[in-house]
Amino acid sequence: MSQRVLRMGMIGGGRGAFIGAVHRVAAALDHEAALTAGCFSSDPDRSRASGRDLGVPGARVYGTWRDMLDRETRLPPGDRIDFVTIVTPNAAHYEPALAFIEAGFHIACDKPLVTTSAQAARLIAAAERSGSIALVTYNYSGYPMVKEARHRVRSGGLGPIRRVVVEYNQGWLATNLEASGQKQASWRVDPARAGAGGAIGDIGSHAEQLLSYVTGLEIESLCADLGAFVPGRALDDDAAMLLRFRPQGGVQARGLLLASQVEIGHENDLRLRVHGERGSLEWRQEEPNALTLRIGDMPEQVLRRGNGYLSPAAQQAGRIPPGHPEGFLEAFANVYRGFFRAVRACGDPAPGASTIVSGQIAPGAPWRVAPETCDFPGLLDGARGVRFIERAVASAASAEKWTAFDGA
Amino acid sequence: MSQRVLRMGMIGGGRGAFIGAVHRVAAALDHEAALTAGCFSSDPDRSRASGRDLGVPGARVYGTWRDMLDRETRLPPGDRIDFVTIVTPNAAHYEPALAFIEAGFHIACDKPLVTTSAQAARLIAAAERSGSIALVTYNYSGYPMVKEARHRVRSGGLGPIRRVVVEYNQGWLATNLEASGQKQASWRVDPARAGAGGAIGDIGSHAEQLLSYVTGLEIESLCADLGAFVPGRALDDDAAMLLRFRPQGGVQARGLLLASQVEIGHENDLRLRVHGERGSLEWRQEEPNALTLRIGDMPEQVLRRGNGYLSPAAQQAGRIPPGHPEGFLEAFANVYRGFFRAVRACGDPAPGASTIVSGQIAPGAPWRVAPETCDFPGLLDGARGVRFIERAVASAASAEKWTAFDGA
Amino acid sequence: MSQRVLRMGMIGGGRGAFIGAVHRVAAALDHEAALTAGCFSSDPDRSRASGRDLGVPGARVYGTWRDMLDRETRLPPGDRIDFVTIVTPNAAHYEPALAFIEAGFHIACDKPLVTTSAQAARLIAAAERSGSIALVTYNYSGYPMVKEARHRVRSGGLGPIRRVVVEYNQGWLATNLEASGQKQASWRVDPARAGAGGAIGDIGSHAEQLLSYVTGLEIESLCADLGAFVPGRALDDDAAMLLRFRPQGGVQARGLLLASQVEIGHENDLRLRVHGERGSLEWRQEEPNALTLRIGDMPEQVLRRGNGYLSPAAQQAGRIPPGHPEGFLEAFANVYRGFFRAVRACGDPAPGASTIVSGQIAPGAPWRVAPETCDFPGLLDGARGVRFIERAVASAASAEKWTAFDGA
Amino acid sequence: MSQRVLRMGMIGGGRGAFIGAVHRVAAALDHEAALTAGCFSSDPDRSRASGRDLGVPGARVYGTWRDMLDRETRLPPGDRIDFVTIVTPNAAHYEPALAFIEAGFHIACDKPLVTTSAQAARLIAAAERSGSIALVTYNYSGYPMVKEARHRVRSGGLGPIRRVVVEYNQGWLATNLEASGQKQASWRVDPARAGAGGAIGDIGSHAEQLLSYVTGLEIESLCADLGAFVPGRALDDDAAMLLRFRPQGGVQARGLLLASQVEIGHENDLRLRVHGERGSLEWRQEEPNALTLRIGDMPEQVLRRGNGYLSPAAQQAGRIPPGHPEGFLEAFANVYRGFFRAVRACGDPAPGASTIVSGQIAPGAPWRVAPETCDFPGLLDGARGVRFIERAVASAASAEKWTAFDGA
Repeated sequence: MSQRVLRMGMIGGGRGAFIGAVHRVAAALDHEAALTAGCFSSDPDRSRASGRDLGVPGARVYGTWRDMLDRETRLPPGDRIDFVTIVTPNAAHYEPALAFIEAGFHIACDKPLVTTSAQAARLIAAAERSGSIALVTYNYSGYPMVKEARHRVRSGGLGPIRRVVVEYNQGWLATNLEASGQKQASWRVDPARAGAGGAIGDIGSHAEQLLSYVTGLEIESLCADLGAFVPGRALDDDAAMLLRFRPQGGVQARGLLLASQVEIGHENDLRLRVHGERGSLEWRQEEPNALTLRIGDMPEQVLRRGNGYLSPAAQQAGRIPPGHPEGFLEAFANVYRGFFRAVRACGDPAPGASTIVSGQIAPGAPWRVAPETCDFPGLLDGARGVRFIERAVASAASAEKWTAFDGA
Repeated sequence: MSQRVLRMGMIGGGRGAFIGAVHRVAAALDHEAALTAGCFSSDPDRSRASGRDLGVPGARVYGTWRDMLDRETRLPPGDRIDFVTIVTPNAAHYEPALAFIEAGFHIACDKPLVTTSAQAARLIAAAERSGSIALVTYNYSGYPMVKEARHRVRSGGLGPIRRVVVEYNQGWLATNLEASGQKQASWRVDPARAGAGGAIGDIGSHAEQLLSYVTGLEIESLCADLGAFVPGRALDDDAAMLLRFRPQGGVQARGLLLASQVEIGHENDLRLRVHGERGSLEWRQEEPNALTLRIGDMPEQVLRRGNGYLSPAAQQAGRIPPGHPEGFLEAFANVYRGFFRAVRACGDPAPGASTIVSGQIAPGAPWRVAPETCDFPGLLDGARGVRFIERAVASAASAEKWTAFDGA
Repeated sequence: MSQRVLRMGMIGGGRGAFIGAVHRVAAALDHEAALTAGCFSSDPDRSRASGRDLGVPGARVYGTWRDMLDRETRLPPGDRIDFVTIVTPNAAHYEPALAFIEAGFHIACDKPLVTTSAQAARLIAAAERSGSIALVTYNYSGYPMVKEARHRVRSGGLGPIRRVVVEYNQGWLATNLEASGQKQASWRVDPARAGAGGAIGDIGSHAEQLLSYVTGLEIESLCADLGAFVPGRALDDDAAMLLRFRPQGGVQARGLLLASQVEIGHENDLRLRVHGERGSLEWRQEEPNALTLRIGDMPEQVLRRGNGYLSPAAQQAGRIPPGHPEGFLEAFANVYRGFFRAVRACGDPAPGASTIVSGQIAPGAPWRVAPETCDFPGLLDGARGVRFIERAVASAASAEKWTAFDGA
Repeated sequence: MSQRVLRMGMIGGGRGAFIGAVHRVAAALDHEAALTAGCFSSDPDRSRASGRDLGVPGARVYGTWRDMLDRETRLPPGDRIDFVTIVTPNAAHYEPALAFIEAGFHIACDKPLVTTSAQAARLIAAAERSGSIALVTYNYSGYPMVKEARHRVRSGGLGPIRRVVVEYNQGWLATNLEASGQKQASWRVDPARAGAGGAIGDIGSHAEQLLSYVTGLEIESLCADLGAFVPGRALDDDAAMLLRFRPQGGVQARGLLLASQVEIGHENDLRLRVHGERGSLEWRQEEPNALTLRIGDMPEQVLRRGNGYLSPAAQQAGRIPPGHPEGFLEAFANVYRGFFRAVRACGDPAPGASTIVSGQIAPGAPWRVAPETCDFPGLLDGARGVRFIERAVASAASAEKWTAFDGA
């Protein structure tokens, strides 16, 4: 099962960045991809310095992403990058994503995908035309026990869902960190770079995707309260909302979503609880190797990663035996792994690959791999996430209780 | 410090009841009170049978509470009951509470106090006239670590409060338990006996009182979503809401409150998190001997009951050394203990005791005890809790986002 | 089911004592017994003062236990105490225990029962003669989830037992607390009052009884290391040992026992783990309402007090619904509850009650109660605990690896 | 800070192996090394197949480790491997380790290093001569919070150490798994491949190294009980022992060590508790991002990976922000990272590098890196671990209580 090592390009992620390094380690963890080219900064000198740090040959380090696109396109197919990872601040995703998709490259883009629903729609349309595969790195859905949670809900073990509670608790923005020039804080609180959402965009969108991934529920309407507790902030640093979902199985589920960055001492405390007619489950990102299951009037069960009683999807998403903790990087690598399967399935990018739908390989086409193993968040998740942010912001400004998810 | 054992009367709490037994154990735990009289059921035969079970002399077991009031009033002061505990279903609190207060007895009443704000106001007015002391058994505020949480917030250790999350998760009503005739379920889902609130009244009001007790925040407006997931229920079995509080220290805090009885496998899972500008805290009723504190960028601290580093209020609320778990009954006994201090302070009930304000001893009067040691929930908490239920129900029926707490 | 309230006498437990108050609350928790008489201190003035605090009539407060014995014996059977609780320091248990047993009173005695095996044997012989019922308050076996653990092991759910780990971790004696005159510390470190064991006697004997109660395993030989870390201590403050048990089901189980009082920050951290051929279990006293069960290759289960899936013994040992934490006092009350059932079963104490064996009611006799519901630790447990201390001390002084439990 | 990617060779770790894959991922995680050559199986065909799976060029895949040594030695220094990782069963470590060290290669060897102390001594002597750097992958010492624990103990924050408890609880060998031919089980229970220790060698030696790494305590004598619960096993599957350490700071610490592979449901449950005169700490491998600290009479603190309050050693051992769980692979990568620093520091291997002592760079020599940053377990740890197994086995066979660690 030796496979060709895929060639990875990167836009952003230079010195001082956090998520760029995560993408590089995650993509390479299983020795399926190697960083080959990049434009690591909007400042060409910084880009070159970062390229040197990372061992990328000077000829493949570019000063602008346009230059990178132009020159990589002209390389022979056996040399050029297979995909490009975009890890710039949110507002700088759209242009390179569109251009690389239109040129037939596959892309991996950090979340939120773009800053408007209209942009998201144009990316989807472009991917339909070019046949590009697109990953949006909602990485938390890569955890094995999240896949088990999904399996349990989707296979009906909990019965129709009634109540969902999803929280993303952080505290690192409880003080005016951006005033110190801290790089991560600075762009996230700036509407010009982050888009219309603060906490709701940065972490609320992860929460939305996690609940959607696990439950399959679709938000029908929402009622949001967004606030900025740290004086001077233009964007929310704390968001809460009530949710109502489209009925499934005759039941209209209700939800609570909390996404706050001012809860001191909470590090990266993403939690999900799902309650159905027959049982409930609970998962916490900070102890990701466990999943608590409560069925009927039976004793609580704690499922742990790596065991034979788990679903195939959960088992295959792990790498090492039970009790050997896996963490954030492995989960991140899992979303890449699904993406790589799709990339390999569709061959080198070619215009007109009609069986690529919305950036993912379509079920039913004669792939050598099972499409369900190409389990990764993509453009549809990205587009839904952008709409989620838009509607949350709209709801927060509205005096009406419920704001329709699909409204204008 | 030998003290007279107070004479306790009881209305309700006969065979098959849950909370009546809790009141009896809690009130007697410290050997400060003894059950002396009672009308334990609306059925005189059941009342007598329960009285026999409980060792109450036949002459002090009554067939109706009116008979009990009439005959106890005529006993010499040294024989008659000192206070009456009312543990009937919610809708049957008001009439005996009013009558006993008007007759100058002290009362202890289960929550919610009554079913309308107007009733609550009349009880307060009556208590002002008669000088009765009144306990409303919001028992969760009796836990030592809740008292520590209160101390930490009230003394400013967390800074001005920004976000509060309070949840009361239960699962015991996830099925149609009332159809089986289960006594606890039957009256709680019946508007004629429970009042206008289902989960919001039964447990949501505990959640409201807990956050109020710890933080001192006052709800300014709320936005509620109440639902009944089990078919056929007239009252909510699941309630969620957004909260906004009156500004304190220049900050307007926001809150989330969840009270659900359909979350399978959750037993009595009341949790509180409070986030301020300088730190945050977390407490869970099911592990009540711990309180988690997170201050600034220091390591998380886990405070445990019984230790010398706790506030006097928390220390005095415990009975045994650290590591010897205390639980529900001890906390329940603590609210009685505060009540007993007030009862003892004010002497035998006498009309016109002008220093009794709203059923509690007033600061400033020449008591032998420090009024702050008479720390127990009373009529004002009870009245606020009734209003909370009313406004939650009103908000749930409204298309407007925010419903004022003090509106009509 | 109204029952006569039993009359309780007490020796020791005056002002400043800890465990005396626990006994009083525990014995009275279910309204089955009431403190009626006592000799609360070896100092008659202190005894009287304590009696006043506790509301005991002056005529029933005695200056010496001999005086108490003498005068209670002469009271009419309907007035005299039913049983006496002995809560003096260890070395002061034997004499009153023997005298009261010989006089036909039932007794409840704190652990360790006495300070030598010979004394224990004489108490057993006396109880055989007099028909007294005797409780030794190994209170930790009163926890409902300990009873569930016992049920799981005894009913074979774990298969033959292989390995047992029992620990009792405390830190309160990590410093030279006795130098400050602290009452609890002072007698426990004094061989004249505590006996030959320090930590091994005070808490190690609890650990031994817990493992014995749950597993039924009998220690065949042990290999102990006892130490005193705080300079100047004559008794151990830290004890560890290897254990080998008599074979059961063809398997010779092995054990580890740790009992330390110098582990800073550990409060009352008693833990038990039992591993069998088919599964294992784990229980911790500081979170006593849960029991973790791991069977074969199934997911871990967490059983919680109060649920219908528990054994009858565990269910009946609880008082309130699941999720309402019960703690130390309720467990302590449970050992009294079993004792009271036996006391009631055997009627008023009478010499020659031949169906009382070693201080417990014997199976097979025509009792109105099922003997298995009189589940409480008694003289045999007490005697075994004394031997355990003796053999641990002997092993610690020996250069041989294994010291037989039954050796001389 | 771009660095040359080191060339890694591997002996063992072919198809079906567990730990080989861990070594490959861990060594490559930070892009500091790349698998370049290997002899992946004692079966040449399997070796070649594994090489293809792993993307190693055919010319660098060898049929025997001797062939690999021979041919790599003849490659130009700029092409040949920098180090070889040995991941064969225990008994097959010694010969290749010795040969590669003698040839001047650096080595990374799985634990236990070899099967006799004499072998270990010869490896050390060889490394002294050749100047090879040697890593023994006691990977658990790579966890950031283990480094914090070490820092806390070594810097005196806990005071002189009194009691240590280290446990390694596993359950995967509770049944006769080797009968099924499971590869991991088969060699571990076979003295010819595993050496004289079963559980004591496989996991007990990890426990010993963890306590040694954190505390610096040296075992003076031990008293072991080794057993085999699964019928037919020649080696122990369950081991427990008492420990006494050489006095430090005037205190002779005592320890307990438990290493069992028959505890059903325990996955990889390595735990350490250290108790000193001023405080104590606790760490568990299955929740490795936390460290519990209990100092004096202060509240318990929970330290978490990634925070600014940690020591530099702990901070530098992490890769991602707090709350983003790191796990087993990152810790494993950390021991490689320290090894790589040493390898880079000493330049290409050259005979006579006199400042390499026992396979590690010696403090005091003019290195460009601080020797303390080359923090990795090496030959001395490996040799001590082998002796630990030998002495445990000797003690288990002895009727004397204490077996000296340094005895014959």
